[in-house]
Amino acid sequence: MERDTSELFEEFKELTASEFFRRNKQMLGFSGKIRSLTIVFHELITNSLDACEEAGILPEITIELKKLGKEHYLLKHADNGPGIPENYITKVYCQMFAGSKFRNIQSRGQQGLGCSGCVLLSQMTTGQPVKVRSRYKDGETLKGVEMTLKLDVKNNTGIILNKKEFETDRTGSGIEIEFKDVSYSMSEQGAYEYIRRTVIGNPHAKIIFKDPTGNKYTFERATDQIPPLPKEVLPHPKGVTADDIINLCRTSNKKRFKNLLMDSLSRVSSSKVQEVEDATGIDMKKRPKSITWKEAEAVVKQFDQMKFMAPPTNGLKPIGDEQIEKGINEILLPEFSTAITRKPQAYRGGVSFIIEAGIAYGGNAGRLVGNQRKAEIMRFANRVPLTFDQGSCAITEALKSIDWRRYGVRDLDNAPISVFVNIISTNVPYLSTGKQSVAPEPEIVKEIRQATMKIARRLEKYIRTKRAAKNEEMRAKIFEDLVPVVIKQSAILAEKDVPEYDKIMDEVTHKAKIMDMKNRLKQPEIEPMQVKMEQANRFKAEPIRNDEEEVDEE
Amino acid sequence: MERDTSELFEEFKELTASEFFRRNKQMLGFSGKIRSLTIVFHELITNSLDACEEAGILPEITIELKKLGKEHYLLKHADNGPGIPENYITKVYCQMFAGSKFRNIQSRGQQGLGCSGCVLLSQMTTGQPVKVRSRYKDGETLKGVEMTLKLDVKNNTGIILNKKEFETDRTGSGIEIEFKDVSYSMSEQGAYEYIRRTVIGNPHAKIIFKDPTGNKYTFERATDQIPPLPKEVLPHPKGVTADDIINLCRTSNKKRFKNLLMDSLSRVSSSKVQEVEDATGIDMKKRPKSITWKEAEAVVKQFDQMKFMAPPTNGLKPIGDEQIEKGINEILLPEFSTAITRKPQAYRGGVSFIIEAGIAYGGNAGRLVGNQRKAEIMRFANRVPLTFDQGSCAITEALKSIDWRRYGVRDLDNAPISVFVNIISTNVPYLSTGKQSVAPEPEIVKEIRQATMKIARRLEKYIRTKRAAKNEEMRAKIFEDLVPVVIKQSAILAEKDVPEYDKIMDEVTHKAKIMDMKNRLKQPEIEPMQVKMEQANRFKAEPIRNDEEEVDEE
Repeated sequence: MERDTSELFEEFKELTASEFFRRNKQMLGFSGKIRSLTIVFHELITNSLDACEEAGILPEITIELKKLGKEHYLLKHADNGPGIPENYITKVYCQMFAGSKFRNIQSRGQQGLGCSGCVLLSQMTTGQPVKVRSRYKDGETLKGVEMTLKLDVKNNTGIILNKKEFETDRTGSGIEIEFKDVSYSMSEQGAYEYIRRTVIGNPHAKIIFKDPTGNKYTFERATDQIPPLPKEVLPHPKGVTADDIINLCRTSNKKRFKNLLMDSLSRVSSSKVQEVEDATGIDMKKRPKSITWKEAEAVVKQFDQMKFMAPPTNGLKPIGDEQIEKGINEILLPEFSTAITRKPQAYRGGVSFIIEAGIAYGGNAGRLVGNQRKAEIMRFANRVPLTFDQGSCAITEALKSIDWRRYGVRDLDNAPISVFVNIISTNVPYLSTGKQSVAPEPEIVKEIRQATMKIARRLEKYIRTKRAAKNEEMRAKIFEDLVPVVIKQSAILAEKDVPEYDKIMDEVTHKAKIMDMKNRLKQPEIEPMQVKMEQANRFKAEPIRNDEEEVDEE
Repeated sequence: MERDTSELFEEFKELTASEFFRRNKQMLGFSGKIRSLTIVFHELITNSLDACEEAGILPEITIELKKLGKEHYLLKHADNGPGIPENYITKVYCQMFAGSKFRNIQSRGQQGLGCSGCVLLSQMTTGQPVKVRSRYKDGETLKGVEMTLKLDVKNNTGIILNKKEFETDRTGSGIEIEFKDVSYSMSEQGAYEYIRRTVIGNPHAKIIFKDPTGNKYTFERATDQIPPLPKEVLPHPKGVTADDIINLCRTSNKKRFKNLLMDSLSRVSSSKVQEVEDATGIDMKKRPKSITWKEAEAVVKQFDQMKFMAPPTNGLKPIGDEQIEKGINEILLPEFSTAITRKPQAYRGGVSFIIEAGIAYGGNAGRLVGNQRKAEIMRFANRVPLTFDQGSCAITEALKSIDWRRYGVRDLDNAPISVFVNIISTNVPYLSTGKQSVAPEPEIVKEIRQATMKIARRLEKYIRTKRAAKNEEMRAKIFEDLVPVVIKQSAILAEKDVPEYDKIMDEVTHKAKIMDMKNRLKQPEIEPMQVKMEQANRFKAEPIRNDEEEVDEE
């Protein structure tokens, strides 16, 4: 039975982005009860950290998660960021594909989906509106506004149910938002671990977390240094496509193609433009709007054959090896730790990135499975912990490809090791909408391997020294146990007094050498006691007092 | 240096869906040169198969891939489907989030992204427009229209550069589309293997593929039976959320809530409605628009406690075990094959699905790695091959969790086995935008395990019989080699003639039993010779003649 064409198209529909994601919420990362809640934490925390960084503020984030019923939670989130001007509030929280981060800048968020995705999930599971509070600077005055909002899925906009203004003496934004069908977990993929890793990657952030059981965790910041503001990086000529050039031409207000190339791309000087003109014959004084695809392609092809300075890297702001080690030491209390921040590299010819890696060994490093500690990989991109989809990630691929036995680690899976890797870039090549794994670009995989092998060599030295010390000690122990007996028995046989043999004994057993070895093993850059105390402060768990209940009190 | 709030929001932008995906093309599956091309094949083929199925047409699809330069291809695709009415052409090919498949129906495509995604990729890599040809029925007349189209990314619509009408005597649609930065590969993730697997999953389809090297592959259909048209399935009360009910209420034109529930959901009778009214106290004669979230939640909660008939399954149309075995035998020429189509089950309480599984052993089953055949998993969802992201897929998870040694397979990874699994559902829970893996819902994983273990038992029998036959044969061989010698020497010693011992020998060596065993091993349901011939036909490779060059000639 054949059916008519027109009949088939009766059902044809057009959806808004909100309607689309309502039907495909797993594409926002919302699949599974634990994962969904972790993704909510992720979106709210990264938004706060990015906003503070852009505004030059040391971030302080408070999150309270209250259990209202079975798989039913109220989340209160507040930060001390710059706030959101009144007329942007519905766009930030209720409109998909709207945001301020569609630029060539190193930032945690990127896609204009985060906050509105959380509101969508809340609405889909509870039907409740959300309450948003924003305190922001309007010229010289500080303004406060509170709104109750719903997301209008059909039109991909926000509906303001209620609005009131209030006076304030500071900036910041906050949200109260309910969820059902989600669950809070202490597991590796849960919200608590997400916060813990965020603290490792962002030692300048203070996060206060009140969990559903009444514990309050205060993660004090380890440094008061505000990370330098990442700069917008112009695309490098080796990284642009013909499509990019056409898009630049369509949107630019430059009068000449020459100026567009020099002002919109990095490392393009007027002599480089001349080189392009000589090779391609394209008149560089043309109006950008008149550039054809063929011409754009010719320019890109010519770029490919030319030499340029490497892409600028002043836009990239790594955490820094010292800070990483600090973070690792405070959270993991390892026997041994080391970190490295590599020099910038470029992938796909023109996108620069920096790899940072750290290793923690012993102590609380590794994952606790039953009673045994197993190796754990902590993946980060622009300081954001990547919690899911590790299988397909460049970081996992690179680390698995290393022959760890060469570095004294006989069985990586069962070693008490945490390996930390952070990729910094204005353009992290994420594999999926949920931004949970990094595409295995060959240059990135290679650089992660290099960084990790470099610090693995340091770990090897430590492990070798430790093993040698242990062997020396065992050898010494045998002497210490046996020699006195032999001396005593000899003295008895010779009918003499037992002689003074301590000094000779120490020499024979290399006591000084062993002590020295042990001392060297015991000297991480931060002294253990100090770490422990800071640790204790950072993890101060105290019952929530009643007068502290309000997260965002006025 | 703190920055002003207003300054931070200067960069705030709103994107269209096309702009969003232009910046995030990997979310459409376009990452990597091989994968990108495979995804293009996938989108075009599934669209054709779905359109034919809905129109009740036996599909015939022609694809020609011409190499125009390094990583530069022209793809010509044409089908004999119902075509696309003129005023829908730009929507289908140039508008994201527009489509006819946003229904509760078993279909291959679902998201209104496929064709427009391909056009976006083409435009981003080549700057070229695409040429679309549609032949369709307008009432009683057949119309033909050809359009040259560009995608207007800024507005998420199509721009018609050129249009001409032509006369036609049939229906169908086709596209000519160029790509750069993609590559054609014969690997497991390449376009050729994608077509081969599509044929296994769709034995009613004929696909003609001309590859870039000039080979023409004709995959003849194995059956002339048009698959029955899948029906739209109303949601089951155990599967709806409060949000679904609210959405139904907002969009319905029913006068009473009672009628909405009975007409929009399956298995809800008037007595069930009464039960809900009695338990919740909600007036079922209310207007749907006046239903509140609380009431919707109360209804869902009540549904959860009630008993309903299982979700209707007449909307689900599996391939069928016979057809699967046919497909497997024709493509893989295995020593042994078996398949199963299970009874419908439901996941998340109310979404029904069917699992089909098949095993091929020996012959060309398995992946050829060097000279050795290794196990291969062929994943399908609604007959569509899933090529990527296998790590996180329910099918992979289920198969890896089976203890294959229990079924006579000592080392699965290194066994010459292909395992085929197809999940049929109106609502396959895909994990990502690229629809390449199925969420590991517990019911689905369990059902895949059940299905596979059932047929693995048949495989075990085969392997056991084969091993027994081999052992018997070895034992017989020893007798056959030694006994005649013993008899002859005995005869010489006894100075007698050598007696007639063949018959006794056969009895001793169980010759009849072995022959029988071997015969049983050799009898698959289709006779090997016949398969081989069909195979040859299905893979007829011939150089392309010049007069056949045009895929969609007029």
